Amino acid sequence: MTRPVLTLHPDRALPTDPTVRTIAREILAGTQDLPLVSMHGHVEAGLLLADEPFADPAALLVTPDHYLLRLLVSQGVSLDALGVPRRDGGEVERDPREIWRQVASRWHVLRGTPTRFWLERELVDVLGVTLRPSAQTADETYDQMVEALSKPQTRPRALFDRFQLEVLATTDDATASLDAHAALETSGLPGRVVPTFRPDALLDATAPGWGQRVARLGELTGVPVRDARTLVEALAVRRAHFVERGALATDHGMRSLSTRPLDAGEADRLVVTALRAAEAGRTLDVPDADALAGHLLFEMARLSCEDGLVMQLHPGVLRGYDTQVAALRGPDVGYDIPVATDFVHALRPVLEAFGHHPGFRLVVFTVDEDVYSRELAPLAGVFPAMRLGAPWWFLDTPDSLRRFRESVTDAAGFYNTTGFVDDTRAFCSIPARHDLSRRIDAGFLARLVAEHRLELDEAHETAVDLAYRLPLASYARPA
Amino acid sequence: MTRPVLTLHPDRALPTDPTVRTIAREILAGTQDLPLVSMHGHVEAGLLLADEPFADPAALLVTPDHYLLRLLVSQGVSLDALGVPRRDGGEVERDPREIWRQVASRWHVLRGTPTRFWLERELVDVLGVTLRPSAQTADETYDQMVEALSKPQTRPRALFDRFQLEVLATTDDATASLDAHAALETSGLPGRVVPTFRPDALLDATAPGWGQRVARLGELTGVPVRDARTLVEALAVRRAHFVERGALATDHGMRSLSTRPLDAGEADRLVVTALRAAEAGRTLDVPDADALAGHLLFEMARLSCEDGLVMQLHPGVLRGYDTQVAALRGPDVGYDIPVATDFVHALRPVLEAFGHHPGFRLVVFTVDEDVYSRELAPLAGVFPAMRLGAPWWFLDTPDSLRRFRESVTDAAGFYNTTGFVDDTRAFCSIPARHDLSRRIDAGFLARLVAEHRLELDEAHETAVDLAYRLPLASYARPA
Amino acid sequence: MTRPVLTLHPDRALPTDPTVRTIAREILAGTQDLPLVSMHGHVEAGLLLADEPFADPAALLVTPDHYLLRLLVSQGVSLDALGVPRRDGGEVERDPREIWRQVASRWHVLRGTPTRFWLERELVDVLGVTLRPSAQTADETYDQMVEALSKPQTRPRALFDRFQLEVLATTDDATASLDAHAALETSGLPGRVVPTFRPDALLDATAPGWGQRVARLGELTGVPVRDARTLVEALAVRRAHFVERGALATDHGMRSLSTRPLDAGEADRLVVTALRAAEAGRTLDVPDADALAGHLLFEMARLSCEDGLVMQLHPGVLRGYDTQVAALRGPDVGYDIPVATDFVHALRPVLEAFGHHPGFRLVVFTVDEDVYSRELAPLAGVFPAMRLGAPWWFLDTPDSLRRFRESVTDAAGFYNTTGFVDDTRAFCSIPARHDLSRRIDAGFLARLVAEHRLELDEAHETAVDLAYRLPLASYARPA
Repeated sequence: MTRPVLTLHPDRALPTDPTVRTIAREILAGTQDLPLVSMHGHVEAGLLLADEPFADPAALLVTPDHYLLRLLVSQGVSLDALGVPRRDGGEVERDPREIWRQVASRWHVLRGTPTRFWLERELVDVLGVTLRPSAQTADETYDQMVEALSKPQTRPRALFDRFQLEVLATTDDATASLDAHAALETSGLPGRVVPTFRPDALLDATAPGWGQRVARLGELTGVPVRDARTLVEALAVRRAHFVERGALATDHGMRSLSTRPLDAGEADRLVVTALRAAEAGRTLDVPDADALAGHLLFEMARLSCEDGLVMQLHPGVLRGYDTQVAALRGPDVGYDIPVATDFVHALRPVLEAFGHHPGFRLVVFTVDEDVYSRELAPLAGVFPAMRLGAPWWFLDTPDSLRRFRESVTDAAGFYNTTGFVDDTRAFCSIPARHDLSRRIDAGFLARLVAEHRLELDEAHETAVDLAYRLPLASYARPA
Repeated sequence: MTRPVLTLHPDRALPTDPTVRTIAREILAGTQDLPLVSMHGHVEAGLLLADEPFADPAALLVTPDHYLLRLLVSQGVSLDALGVPRRDGGEVERDPREIWRQVASRWHVLRGTPTRFWLERELVDVLGVTLRPSAQTADETYDQMVEALSKPQTRPRALFDRFQLEVLATTDDATASLDAHAALETSGLPGRVVPTFRPDALLDATAPGWGQRVARLGELTGVPVRDARTLVEALAVRRAHFVERGALATDHGMRSLSTRPLDAGEADRLVVTALRAAEAGRTLDVPDADALAGHLLFEMARLSCEDGLVMQLHPGVLRGYDTQVAALRGPDVGYDIPVATDFVHALRPVLEAFGHHPGFRLVVFTVDEDVYSRELAPLAGVFPAMRLGAPWWFLDTPDSLRRFRESVTDAAGFYNTTGFVDDTRAFCSIPARHDLSRRIDAGFLARLVAEHRLELDEAHETAVDLAYRLPLASYARPA
Repeated sequence: MTRPVLTLHPDRALPTDPTVRTIAREILAGTQDLPLVSMHGHVEAGLLLADEPFADPAALLVTPDHYLLRLLVSQGVSLDALGVPRRDGGEVERDPREIWRQVASRWHVLRGTPTRFWLERELVDVLGVTLRPSAQTADETYDQMVEALSKPQTRPRALFDRFQLEVLATTDDATASLDAHAALETSGLPGRVVPTFRPDALLDATAPGWGQRVARLGELTGVPVRDARTLVEALAVRRAHFVERGALATDHGMRSLSTRPLDAGEADRLVVTALRAAEAGRTLDVPDADALAGHLLFEMARLSCEDGLVMQLHPGVLRGYDTQVAALRGPDVGYDIPVATDFVHALRPVLEAFGHHPGFRLVVFTVDEDVYSRELAPLAGVFPAMRLGAPWWFLDTPDSLRRFRESVTDAAGFYNTTGFVDDTRAFCSIPARHDLSRRIDAGFLARLVAEHRLELDEAHETAVDLAYRLPLASYARPA
């Protein structure tokens, strides 16, 4: 049992039933060589512009991956031991080999998880690892990765090419510079890297540094923010800048989902109060800030009708659940927990106002499976503006991707979903994620064929649509 | 790939596993020729009395089918283009061939949906269609349907006979005339058509025209309504009329599920207030109206103990989600969205009061799968008066019918469910819906047999019970 | 079809797919002979100390089994007819043969339920039944059971030995005597019987007799309870007594889950008010009692960090749903209904305070499947102190055990779950429950292997961990 090898089986994640697997293989063959379109994610444009070799296996695979961090923490490994920086300047592990040993020696913790599925592919395909990680093989696998990372074909741009990335969308603070995107346009990269407008920190008046951010927005746009009207005006100007740089979409996370517009006076009053509070080093209280955020989100939808940016919503996550950890380590270290969200009532204002607008496209994501068949599929199955995003975060897994299709296809069909959207921070995991989705969709479609609920030619076409055409179409301004 | 044929495979919707499929086929053979009992639905008695040919394919299949309308709307087709009438008298498409072209050219939107499953059977079995609908085949398939509709065997009564309908329950406003039902009794139809008492518009004091409806109820029953007591008395008299006409059940939809009785004075006060408001052209406000509706629902349960009408509840739907669409088109055009409902607390008053009453039968439906294993199966698995209705509306689908059995059988068994209830407005879809349910139940039972959790003889008997005996027994006054 | 035999198929509850079943059989073979560790349940220590023969089949299988009672009641059998005692002294059936006839003649009601799965194994393996129960075979099967119960190998201690019980945890009121446990330690039983500290009736100031219980606690511990501080102090002393007697864990059920600590003054005030109310024959009102219970639960967690008792939570059940039944029959007769619980916010105080404490272990159970992927797996997948308990009560079923693994493994893996915990009152059902869990886990792991998501050697090891090593490790003080 020692030193088992690490390989990728061609039938991985396909259904076990022999009839269905045969059909699934055939469907999968039709999508396996399609280019990747990564319409939403968190890779940084600068990575591709700089095109420097990845520093080391830990910096590439472990320290920035909150999926992996949380599972190791859950088994008693400290974030210190995993090299996650502390804001108090305290010591953390700095030897990447030691960090990898923590992972390799707890490889069993990942059994059955999507993290393992993705990592296996990265290890084999990108990092040249040939052995299953374990305490025994930690050093040898580490050395294999170091060797691979030293080669030119493992640099970001070479991987971009090898991954067949046709579009890669980044996610960018509303006030961020888009210079890297501009530079990439003429850099000869064999695909587009487009920014995404993410104004969360401007829409939530309790966000750290909200006052300065708003001031900065005013400077960037030439529209000084004095009230809600000027705030929306400045946001509109900034959105136009993103559109010029190739942006296709906006993206919105929030503490509490609302799209309820306020009357103009009330909205102005809240912004004025928030600006005064910021000057005094305070913030708006949470209920007022949430009301304002709901108003501004409605306004973002209105602007989307005008400038054609697709609106993405990522609600329902309580971020920084453990406040001490959040204070010490910052965001994205594994302590974000889903919470129940009432989409039906929260989306009603925006759907009633713009749900039939020919220029509006709303893509809704969830980390709560319970709302698929009760709320999201029924809504996406009637409002032409709405598309249901791919299973997100905790739900981007083999079994959950399958349950997604099983739950939403009844009421929404395939063509009111966006097809696959990877939403990853881990550049090297992009192909693994798309591959998994294609496998699960092939398996689901194959079952429909085997149950005589769909013809094979239709399944083939649908698979290509889900993998490639629908993501492109969902992130294009509606015709 | 052009002009693929349309056929019905004998194994459609059966499990893919070869062992399980073989057993499922055998179980299905035992139910496939059973008569249909349609214990709840929205076909109108007048359709069978008049027995006129269906007007055209669009009027039969498209314009009245909110399942189909919503999926086409979601893809950008307007309700105008689908011929759905406007209340403002505006123009809508009137050429049924054009309407069918909208459907046929978007056939891919229905992939994987139950709507497609039902339609295929209607097209092949009732309407003589031999080609898969598409832009290319739209006219030819349209002509095939027109041809079929011109034949005597496609008239309503001939279909009733061909469908082997033993009982067909209609749903009737509490103040509706039941003359068509009376006339059908002696019309030689080879089966019963029974009315169902639906008093929603009288129980909800915010319903349009509530005052006039209540006055009409007083006239019909000879019990002038002055307060809650006389309202309940008048309803009791009207229920007796329905019982005389063969009614087996009442049916109740509501904005917000409650069964909490008020004290007599408070109930009277609310009705008096509502009557005064109606005279002044206003309505009770929503919280008061909901409290009154909860009280009256409790009273309906009390009357059920006396007159033996089975009480059906259909809660948890926000109807007319888009208020502008609702104002322009009226109800049932596809804009109804499920919302979360707390069945456990809402049903407690009625279950504590009548849950063990030998004359009471409560059938509860839901469009929210999340409550199957948490709420409804545990309740139906202890209270003798309660039965769990079949998966309803958004849940009447191949995969959801299967999940229903997988979720509720543990805590409620098979015999605390009603067996299949189709609940359709589309007369021609009745056989397709029962067929699907029989297939899914056969598949579920076959899996239990293959997993050695049930013997084959038991599976056979259970399948017949679910398809035929249990619906009949569930809608008979408890012995 | 008459007199079918009753046998246990070796492949029962294994997946139907031939490839997967073959792998599952192999995995199951590796766990089938492992000892049973029953880390939480409701068998009484006195049963094993007295070691008397079971009275009769009804007293063993029917009257105390709320799973079975509820299903029979749901079909119109009265609790009287099932021999369940009344508090008003009214007559109930006393002939166990008659009671068994009620069960046997309604055997079909149990089709597809876990109760049937467990009972079949008890009937065949423990009680020597060879025929499927039915009206026809009621007397013959009854006689077979009476015969079996007369034999020495069917006494409790002989069964304990035959079941290969290595640990059996009981659940004991905080003020209960642990003398039986002490006596069992030296009684030569081939395994440990350990108590579990359950202080519900002391933590909920609305519980019947709360005042006397608190006074009794004061007597037992020598710490008179005057306020919250002394109440916690007395509880700490009592916990120490449980630890001495071998206790590994505490267990907590509650009306409404909260772990929010109060400030010391507020907590003291509530206890003082509750003590005064008790003297006056009243109780604290429910909101205050729930606030106090949340505070005390937080304190129990704090004490767990010190004394190493694993904290188990069993929230989300509305007990005694029908108040008349509860008044007449007492608890545990089948009228307990799950309700939705917000674990994310309710657990936050205790997880923020102690979720990383090296001495704390929190095991959370649920009867609500909806929170597996949204709340519990994400929490257990990051906090080292937390483990997700096995599917409980309504969820301890073939299909739900499978759905549990399918829902939680993505975000929590296998190693943040406790492995199997039976939680039964029915001593003879313990092997059946462990057997079922091992079969379902074998099937789930086999599917992962067949889908090339896990290697066979890993599946073997994981199966043993889930069946044996993880329950032991989860109920040991964290290292």
